[in-house]
Amino acid sequence: MQVGNRLKLLRSHMERESISSIIVMNPDHQYYLSGFKALLYSRPIVLYIDFNKASIIVPGLEEAHARHEAIVDEIEVYYEHPNASNSKLNHFEYIEDLISENENGSTVGVDLSSTPGEIVQFAQKFGCKIADIGQKIVEMRYIKDSYEIDLLEKSGELVNLAVSESLKSCKEGITEMEMDAVGNSALFAATASQYPQATLDMFVMSPSGVKRSNMPHVFSNTRKLRTGDVMIHSRQVGLNGYRAELERTVIIGGPTEEQKKAFESARIAQQKALDFIKPGVKAYEVDKIAREVFEKDGYGEYAIHRTGHGIGISAHEKPYLRYDNDLILEEGMVFSVEPGIYVPGLGGFRHSDTVVLTSDGSRLITEYPRDLASLIF
Amino acid sequence: MQVGNRLKLLRSHMERESISSIIVMNPDHQYYLSGFKALLYSRPIVLYIDFNKASIIVPGLEEAHARHEAIVDEIEVYYEHPNASNSKLNHFEYIEDLISENENGSTVGVDLSSTPGEIVQFAQKFGCKIADIGQKIVEMRYIKDSYEIDLLEKSGELVNLAVSESLKSCKEGITEMEMDAVGNSALFAATASQYPQATLDMFVMSPSGVKRSNMPHVFSNTRKLRTGDVMIHSRQVGLNGYRAELERTVIIGGPTEEQKKAFESARIAQQKALDFIKPGVKAYEVDKIAREVFEKDGYGEYAIHRTGHGIGISAHEKPYLRYDNDLILEEGMVFSVEPGIYVPGLGGFRHSDTVVLTSDGSRLITEYPRDLASLIF
Repeated sequence: MQVGNRLKLLRSHMERESISSIIVMNPDHQYYLSGFKALLYSRPIVLYIDFNKASIIVPGLEEAHARHEAIVDEIEVYYEHPNASNSKLNHFEYIEDLISENENGSTVGVDLSSTPGEIVQFAQKFGCKIADIGQKIVEMRYIKDSYEIDLLEKSGELVNLAVSESLKSCKEGITEMEMDAVGNSALFAATASQYPQATLDMFVMSPSGVKRSNMPHVFSNTRKLRTGDVMIHSRQVGLNGYRAELERTVIIGGPTEEQKKAFESARIAQQKALDFIKPGVKAYEVDKIAREVFEKDGYGEYAIHRTGHGIGISAHEKPYLRYDNDLILEEGMVFSVEPGIYVPGLGGFRHSDTVVLTSDGSRLITEYPRDLASLIF
Repeated sequence: MQVGNRLKLLRSHMERESISSIIVMNPDHQYYLSGFKALLYSRPIVLYIDFNKASIIVPGLEEAHARHEAIVDEIEVYYEHPNASNSKLNHFEYIEDLISENENGSTVGVDLSSTPGEIVQFAQKFGCKIADIGQKIVEMRYIKDSYEIDLLEKSGELVNLAVSESLKSCKEGITEMEMDAVGNSALFAATASQYPQATLDMFVMSPSGVKRSNMPHVFSNTRKLRTGDVMIHSRQVGLNGYRAELERTVIIGGPTEEQKKAFESARIAQQKALDFIKPGVKAYEVDKIAREVFEKDGYGEYAIHRTGHGIGISAHEKPYLRYDNDLILEEGMVFSVEPGIYVPGLGGFRHSDTVVLTSDGSRLITEYPRDLASLIF
């Protein structure tokens, strides 16, 4: 992981903006800048970077984990052990120490969209000015390096496997959760044999039926698939912290004419967006290409979400393929492409694939048939 | 879900503290106060409560889900559709509208440990004073009502099943992730048949071997179990948002004398804490009972975390059974009891069970044998 280069870029930015030090609380930013990702629970973890060092503040029970994985200069630990009370009790005490190394009136950069208000207020108490550093880190993460793309491609292969295994079990009578579990088992077995010592992130949901498929984000539940159902099987797999996404809309039994029409509209919208996306085009243009298909087919108002999002360490990350984003896309960006429609009384229709932008276009890193005939179970 | 009573209590507190309205960003607090829990991604969700109404601000693609589940007076939706641009573009614009209903100089309560700094700064721009409301909501959640305890007990039964099925598959050569998957499948099948339409949260990890079991919180990976390993199988299951926790330390093959000694110390520390915990005792006393066992056995310094934590909507929630917490425990509180030691060169040892405090003591809602003979595989 190229943490060194990232810190160098970030410190150049800090210098330009007269920022003395930064506080990073977003776990995905922390992973990007330090190689350390905790299982976050109730104990805060803080990444603190100035021009001399990068420090990570962790609770005692993440100490061994951090010493093993964090690429930082300094690991500061707060304990919850009565005899360790000579050390600091919580992350605030370490932040105080570190911030006090700055000159009075210095500017501290904070990722303002993730850092809790109480930490911002705490920093202000020491006379610091606050600047947002979050947007800069977000932008650094736009373009993936070869190490990141390699992991994303491997995650793509794993998500392909998991989706195809889950869909093999897709039939009337199985519950959403049971179908998910079939793919999970295959995924775990494959990861175990191919990537010993790897860490796996995983997300899966399979909302089925008119009402549930119309909710783009709900947990799978124990609803049983029935003939006539539309169902969106949706998965992300992340190998060592980098995620790929693959989603397919399926029909149980034979589709009605109405289902067929909506399915085709979503399939074509996605295909056109996939054919179009490449370096040099603007983010909103990809969204527009897909929306034009839906408009023509009479579904325009039902395309309630953006056509896609950046993907990598985070399940969803910027840049977004959204109607109001005029960012010019670049080589090395990675996107989900997933125009969707949610038609009252009919259900939700959305395929999603993950693409890497290359010098001359784009390359899919996920794959499963997209045509209706292959997706009737 | 008793949302009405909760809002009444909260508004009494607001009145006493002269707080005009509150902003709640913590998803678990939102669920507690509105019955709505989204799959959170990149789009913020805001719960806003004043004396007249409770409002939830959601992105377009959570609209159907919120209309179906949120127990609020008002659902405000921001869209990412070009033709919906007459409506508001993001959550800030709705917050502005709502905050502007307050008199100038009013105090807005914010859950400061979860609400991003950017929202606090935004509220301050409108001349609002900021007060912390988070601690009050945390305290309201200490004592569970009968609806919550019923769900926790059902989650207890499900986690019992999942742990016992995973441990049936525990043997040399299986990977941590594969073993987890066996319990997951059983869990999904049981939930499907017993609780159709239920939502399930789930967490599982099984760090094995000296190095990994010494890290209290790491994801399962593809490491294969080997004879001589110590492994901590750790699970939470949440039915409709309420979680129970069950964890067991196991040994693959025969234990060494050193492993046997550390195992017994952790087992006895947990048993003593379980026997001791009841309404009227103080949180730190439960921690002390367990630590005394570890001290006597020479493991005192390796007991690096608190003896337990509250559990319910959150995976870990207050009150904590921690050495510096002098809170008096009350009937209706629910805790994990899980003293653990992490011995360099030997590994981690920790059982966890979930207990409900009753009028005359406590009741376990998780169960699996805790003795060494039952935990050698």
